[in-house]
Amino acid sequence: MENDFVRRLRARLGTHAAVPLGIGDDAASVHTGEETLVTVDLLCEGTHFRLGEATPEQIGRKALAVSLSDIAAMAGVPLAVFVAFTAPADGGLSLVEGLYQGMIPLAEEFNTAIAGGDTNSWDGPLVISTTVLGKVHPRGKLTRHHARPGDVLLVTGSLGGSLAGHHLSFVPRVREAQRLHEGYELSAGMDLSDGLLVDLGRLIEASGVGAALDLEAIPISEAAWRHAGRHNRQGALEAALGDGEDFELLLCAAPGEAARMLSEQPLEIPLTQIGTIVAEPGLWLTAPEGRQRLEVRGWQHRLS
Amino acid sequence: MENDFVRRLRARLGTHAAVPLGIGDDAASVHTGEETLVTVDLLCEGTHFRLGEATPEQIGRKALAVSLSDIAAMAGVPLAVFVAFTAPADGGLSLVEGLYQGMIPLAEEFNTAIAGGDTNSWDGPLVISTTVLGKVHPRGKLTRHHARPGDVLLVTGSLGGSLAGHHLSFVPRVREAQRLHEGYELSAGMDLSDGLLVDLGRLIEASGVGAALDLEAIPISEAAWRHAGRHNRQGALEAALGDGEDFELLLCAAPGEAARMLSEQPLEIPLTQIGTIVAEPGLWLTAPEGRQRLEVRGWQHRLS
Repeated sequence: MENDFVRRLRARLGTHAAVPLGIGDDAASVHTGEETLVTVDLLCEGTHFRLGEATPEQIGRKALAVSLSDIAAMAGVPLAVFVAFTAPADGGLSLVEGLYQGMIPLAEEFNTAIAGGDTNSWDGPLVISTTVLGKVHPRGKLTRHHARPGDVLLVTGSLGGSLAGHHLSFVPRVREAQRLHEGYELSAGMDLSDGLLVDLGRLIEASGVGAALDLEAIPISEAAWRHAGRHNRQGALEAALGDGEDFELLLCAAPGEAARMLSEQPLEIPLTQIGTIVAEPGLWLTAPEGRQRLEVRGWQHRLS
Repeated sequence: MENDFVRRLRARLGTHAAVPLGIGDDAASVHTGEETLVTVDLLCEGTHFRLGEATPEQIGRKALAVSLSDIAAMAGVPLAVFVAFTAPADGGLSLVEGLYQGMIPLAEEFNTAIAGGDTNSWDGPLVISTTVLGKVHPRGKLTRHHARPGDVLLVTGSLGGSLAGHHLSFVPRVREAQRLHEGYELSAGMDLSDGLLVDLGRLIEASGVGAALDLEAIPISEAAWRHAGRHNRQGALEAALGDGEDFELLLCAAPGEAARMLSEQPLEIPLTQIGTIVAEPGLWLTAPEGRQRLEVRGWQHRLS
């Protein structure tokens, strides 16, 4: 029963300093400060996960991690998550309990209250919507809009092959984004959810600039190499450029600042220069024979 | 294409004073004031609406109206909505454009920015999640938690038979809730989404009290009478007590304050006294032969 489930969940969650009114009223309230960051993601069975390939715990964890990654992209401080789902009426209860089982430890790790939601059942697949609210960092919010020609393009970690497992186990780069935003002057940033080329395309569009990638420098993940085969550099590189769900940070900084980041390497994961921002719109690659146009590929939802 | 759709939507929506950063970044930001009200609802094809019985415009309007009603329940001021959906890949684009077509006028009517969301497609039915953020009213937030024995129970409007059309056309009681919260001392309030008895059961549980209903006084809607038949008072009353999706306000106020509200009738819709809050937990009805226990019925999502 919906009421019983919500009652058990409330008993388990306890209280949170930023949430004066949590689960159990018509709306919740969150102390966010004057300006509130908000992101919402919808995860659908068959599209974003497959029951059978992923446990309910992994799916619940991922649903929250994806939204935390969006707050990380703004260098924000996550505060609270709201979880709405519709689950199959038969078998849905243990499924949903598994979702929360996976979500709660990650919420605790990032001091994020599970503050409300909506419980539904139907004769259909599992759909989860996660809305995360965050505080703007005291240094302001990091956006996609202020990359400038001459900036250096950087990524955290390594890219590609996420479907082999990373998409279910990644740690959202919340702490890394805050540390970089505090220690350096970043001009723009975002998280990589739909593939480097697609997401970089969005960043340069938002900033009204172009980008030239150094394909030799792209950090290719172990998983991408494994999937492509050890001697198939082209295949591994294509995975690093095109695969979605890396959930790493893509960042821009002026050259002096970027040099400092690269030499100090302040994170527990590598920071790598992968290219530069250029004035001419579009995606380019830097090659010995000069700059060439790059074709964009990657994952988009099709609607017709 | 997802990008094209989002671009067109942004062009259409314009700007909003409370939204420094709207659609198009990893997260949006909203000026909410220190304490933010949040509510999320998930609407599923086949459960909350049927394509064919409702137009996409009506569905989009309803998705927003349901969440605005939750903000009304707190006597809050809605600011921004975040819309995430998954739509069938084939035919989904015109469906989704219809949803926004229906949602935009209601958002404008309530000065609520469409500030972000998530766009997905799949080979499945339409699912929409709406998250509405609101400001707490300067007089504080109205909750379910402070109903006191002796309080009078009031409802706005009339109840029952919503499925005949009201559930697609109702106006969320945002203005009414604010007006009452400004002009009177309300002790508790909520909106009626799952049926009077079920929702009243939640209110008294949250407040640790009971309620005695005067069944003679329940305002029965035209639609409930029409559906039950003119001479079937019992059938019409059961609809008023049990049917979901009235989206009227259920309010509690001390007797003197309630008397003032009832005589002043400050709204364009009727305010009706339907019972009183009592110390003894549970739902009761007042009858000539004394107080009797009432059985709870109504709509709950089943999960097993």
